[in-house]
Amino acid sequence: MRKQVCIIGGGPAGLLLSQLLHRAGIDSVILERRSRDHVLSRIRAGVLERGTMRMLDEAGVGARMHREGYVHTGTYLSLQNRGFRIDFDRLVGSSVMVYGQTEVTHDLYDARDAMGGDIVDEAADVTPHDIETDRPYVTYVKDGTEHRVDCDWIAGCDGSHGVSRRSIPGHALRTFERVYPFGWLGVLSETPPVSHELIYANHSRGFALCSMRNENLSRYYIQAPADDDAANWSDDAFWDELRRRIPEDAADRLVTGPSIEKSLAPLRSFVAEPMKWGRLFLVGDAAHIVPPTGAKGLNLAVSDVHYLYHALVRHYDGDDEGVATYSETALHRVWKAIRFSWWFTTTMHRFPDQSNFDQRIQETELEVLEESETLQRHLAENYVGLPY
Amino acid sequence: MRKQVCIIGGGPAGLLLSQLLHRAGIDSVILERRSRDHVLSRIRAGVLERGTMRMLDEAGVGARMHREGYVHTGTYLSLQNRGFRIDFDRLVGSSVMVYGQTEVTHDLYDARDAMGGDIVDEAADVTPHDIETDRPYVTYVKDGTEHRVDCDWIAGCDGSHGVSRRSIPGHALRTFERVYPFGWLGVLSETPPVSHELIYANHSRGFALCSMRNENLSRYYIQAPADDDAANWSDDAFWDELRRRIPEDAADRLVTGPSIEKSLAPLRSFVAEPMKWGRLFLVGDAAHIVPPTGAKGLNLAVSDVHYLYHALVRHYDGDDEGVATYSETALHRVWKAIRFSWWFTTTMHRFPDQSNFDQRIQETELEVLEESETLQRHLAENYVGLPY
Repeated sequence: MRKQVCIIGGGPAGLLLSQLLHRAGIDSVILERRSRDHVLSRIRAGVLERGTMRMLDEAGVGARMHREGYVHTGTYLSLQNRGFRIDFDRLVGSSVMVYGQTEVTHDLYDARDAMGGDIVDEAADVTPHDIETDRPYVTYVKDGTEHRVDCDWIAGCDGSHGVSRRSIPGHALRTFERVYPFGWLGVLSETPPVSHELIYANHSRGFALCSMRNENLSRYYIQAPADDDAANWSDDAFWDELRRRIPEDAADRLVTGPSIEKSLAPLRSFVAEPMKWGRLFLVGDAAHIVPPTGAKGLNLAVSDVHYLYHALVRHYDGDDEGVATYSETALHRVWKAIRFSWWFTTTMHRFPDQSNFDQRIQETELEVLEESETLQRHLAENYVGLPY
Repeated sequence: MRKQVCIIGGGPAGLLLSQLLHRAGIDSVILERRSRDHVLSRIRAGVLERGTMRMLDEAGVGARMHREGYVHTGTYLSLQNRGFRIDFDRLVGSSVMVYGQTEVTHDLYDARDAMGGDIVDEAADVTPHDIETDRPYVTYVKDGTEHRVDCDWIAGCDGSHGVSRRSIPGHALRTFERVYPFGWLGVLSETPPVSHELIYANHSRGFALCSMRNENLSRYYIQAPADDDAANWSDDAFWDELRRRIPEDAADRLVTGPSIEKSLAPLRSFVAEPMKWGRLFLVGDAAHIVPPTGAKGLNLAVSDVHYLYHALVRHYDGDDEGVATYSETALHRVWKAIRFSWWFTTTMHRFPDQSNFDQRIQETELEVLEESETLQRHLAENYVGLPY
């Protein structure tokens, strides 16, 4: 098979890129290792930046999001059971959209299918070749048969453990990592959310987050030791602990119910540089991981897609400036989001080795956030998404 | 001797408090352990916040500052030999005044002398007594004779190593400390400053600061290991190292000369709570220490004096609300300045245990500062001084 662009990975980044390229008359195929059901069953965050909304609209897949998503014009922060609001709308005249990543992926699959997009699922042993030449190709095995995609470019949208990043020679790759000494224990429950807007809570017992998917689907998290196990937590124990950490009025009105999903996720920050090697581009999680605090993961993948999509369109118009500068351009924005996620994580969580000085600095940071419109605006600008 | 207020420590905080109280008709005495010549020979920072200027004016000692000081409407930050400017005037409509602490102290002594203020210098063995009663007193030895000051209140303005903080029982005192793993090697030289406005430089070789006292007196600093020794540094070695760390254009025009003072200062953040115990108040360095980055030390002492002065005036008007809440009120502002100094120090210095992730975060922080007017405004608001 011959395609202009071979996309490795059929998550939201790969699907969105493929969809945008298709509409621009650029041919691509998506190779996805897992089944579509598996991809659609992954539970991920669901706070979309304004830029992400615009990109989904541009790809023609924004209709259901606008219909069923929830516009949030602010969020709550809380320090030791007392909350205060950050008003995005007033501070920066913008807002975010709560719409699950699963729904985004669903809409993208529907759109790809409707346009006859080429998606190979359960593609095994996907392997890029000759990426340092002008004639790269990708091989994979489907139903026991090896296939080959000849292409101009390869887009690595296959996450942190995918083959794409591993295809860049080690001597060329520089990595940056911070592993946080805790995880997020998350519970999904068919209960009305305690708050429509998210509540990020700093408490001496640890961080907690209240978030929502819809009127009867809530997603809550509590900070837990990194080596804890979700199996150690009964639903009751989870609800009790959550209640202790969130603002008093929220705790009073919390509606609990059986968990329909419960899992512990580690937190880390990670960046690999460069994001382009020869004819291979890294996109989203393949190049960088953020902790979930502030929900930057999907949004950062979408801004990478934005830069790559425009770079490829320019390339096929005869201008290689965009592909030449993709890595630098994308990384410039990536590091700012990495910094924001790191700061928000560092400010909201309790660390095992935190001195009383560190703790007071953290509390003061939140007090300053409550008092200072300027610092609130800085948070809001980053939360609704830096421009691109 | 009987005084309404006994002030321990004849540095700028004690002198300013005494001067303000005098003008409000409240009688005080200052007990200073060292000679006046010693106090006046101490070299300290000299960037005054707008609130500090206002307080000096209110005390009637601002005339020479306005005549001889330098109004700075901005400052430079630099990352790896490239500088950019933070424009206080444009961002927050305010500025700072460069006027050495030694000059402030001089003006205050002159004013106290002119009003016949009671200042005992070379007072040995100064000791507060009965501070938990309504009849506290302070004893001291002068020229071999013991003296006693009976008073209503004691103001501890005697710095971090003074007797005042030690007079609060250990069980009642909570302390918070961060010792930074480096010091500032400072040089004073009779050379024209490389820049009128300060230059704070982050460089892979370490932090550097260019500051000035007047047209022919410069004060430069470079980050050095905490256990280094000023004696290890020849003037030439200092100038060479400074030149490597500052913006290129500044390095090109740097005028060097013999150092007239060279010393290594440790950096730490420290807070003691509460700032009031019985009839004893802690003021300035007696309660808190900031690293010199951002020059908050003297300014924070002056805001403490502001709160204490108004509390005492209210007390003698029959209202004890101010003295009752002094500690809480002062600490609320103290912690915000402690946070700013900690952040500015952390952002501008290289740390021995810094990972490449930490370093990139630091560099990104400076890039965001250069790009984001909002973060610049946050820095400017803190640099020119939070309101009180």
